[in-house]
Amino acid sequence: MIRMKEDEKYFKNISERERAIFEGAITMGALFHQFIGTPISLKTADGLEKAIKEAMELQPCIREVWVKIDRKILSEVDNKYQYVSLNGDMLDVKVLSVFGDHKAVIRMQFIEELQYPLMYVEDVD
Amino acid sequence: MIRMKEDEKYFKNISERERAIFEGAITMGALFHQFIGTPISLKTADGLEKAIKEAMELQPCIREVWVKIDRKILSEVDNKYQYVSLNGDMLDVKVLSVFGDHKAVIRMQFIEELQYPLMYVEDVD
Amino acid sequence: MIRMKEDEKYFKNISERERAIFEGAITMGALFHQFIGTPISLKTADGLEKAIKEAMELQPCIREVWVKIDRKILSEVDNKYQYVSLNGDMLDVKVLSVFGDHKAVIRMQFIEELQYPLMYVEDVD
Amino acid sequence: MIRMKEDEKYFKNISERERAIFEGAITMGALFHQFIGTPISLKTADGLEKAIKEAMELQPCIREVWVKIDRKILSEVDNKYQYVSLNGDMLDVKVLSVFGDHKAVIRMQFIEELQYPLMYVEDVD
Repeated sequence: MIRMKEDEKYFKNISERERAIFEGAITMGALFHQFIGTPISLKTADGLEKAIKEAMELQPCIREVWVKIDRKILSEVDNKYQYVSLNGDMLDVKVLSVFGDHKAVIRMQFIEELQYPLMYVEDVD
Repeated sequence: MIRMKEDEKYFKNISERERAIFEGAITMGALFHQFIGTPISLKTADGLEKAIKEAMELQPCIREVWVKIDRKILSEVDNKYQYVSLNGDMLDVKVLSVFGDHKAVIRMQFIEELQYPLMYVEDVD
Repeated sequence: MIRMKEDEKYFKNISERERAIFEGAITMGALFHQFIGTPISLKTADGLEKAIKEAMELQPCIREVWVKIDRKILSEVDNKYQYVSLNGDMLDVKVLSVFGDHKAVIRMQFIEELQYPLMYVEDVD
Repeated sequence: MIRMKEDEKYFKNISERERAIFEGAITMGALFHQFIGTPISLKTADGLEKAIKEAMELQPCIREVWVKIDRKILSEVDNKYQYVSLNGDMLDVKVLSVFGDHKAVIRMQFIEELQYPLMYVEDVD
């Protein structure tokens, strides 16, 4: 890993593990609010998943992003326009962030019980 | 063309030509405000252009969308993170909308003289 | 009205009436895709309506914008977090655009029958 | 503090301090990507700052948000339209998040040297 000068300057008050959590969380918040509202249908879902993945993998410390858009919801769209706006209940996302020797997997998933697209730490070491 | 009941109900006060202009303009405004801010680099530009195109072609009356993101600007990014947020001065977009026998080509382009990403009607019949 | 040089250059192929429709439509598309996804609750709805209105009134030819966010939907939110993401079915918006002697009122409203936040021309002269 | 069942279920692998960092980071990423692109001018800056603050304070564990939009940049806008799109170099934001006995202050600031709107942990205990 290339340690940058700004790591020393701006992040000296947190641990490597905390940094991994921090960067993963930023990316998850960013992803949701950048792409919610995008027009989507069954036939464009593959391309949008890939574009979201590639965009968010550019962010600092992000090693990999997995995006799944719920095809069942898309297949049930029955307005006359044959598409919908991307919504929190259609998204299942994992973000792997790495800093130093530590990695964190941040997850976003719509939790039925909470009626809320929850972002949480699925795994961290 | 399949004429829908809501065309009669909601659009009877405008002509077919005006409808083509209307739908193209909506899509251009939507495109800009949906995707501005997206992380982008030289290596993700192709995929993002395609995803934007596919998303916006879902909108009513939109026959085709062309998106060009300025590679020169992307190649000159010199922050340490090797990416930037998609910005109005990087985008050149055309939207072809069709209604009835009429079509409109809406264009967005950053105009240096205006220092502004201008949206205008490039062609209409 | 101050006619600008770029009006001659970029908009000579459309009428004043068409220009009013064009600018109103851009603003409606922009509004939807800029603000969808914003966290909102009963207590923040007034401020968000005002901020949306003020932002969109900056756009070219926009004389006035009215934004209503559905308080009934907000009052029924029953997740534990007491807020939701702004959604197309909560919005009722009118945009008044004026160019030359012509004005257009663009409306966006969630139409139950269509299950879609329809943007249409409510009035134009 | 009311501890919720989902805190036990989804966040048992991180400490209270890490949770504060996590939630603050999500909110900062969310804020940037929700509001970048919003039309803004000197006269609308106060209202937009307030709306951003109120929206982001709704998110889990967020106690307070401070938003400053650079008035100097806004006062130098010299396009004919008298407004611009909100951009990363105009924003200075602090987010205070609290979980249990721990709090974190997340900051976003445009760092000239990096040519990048850096998000970092300004303070945490």
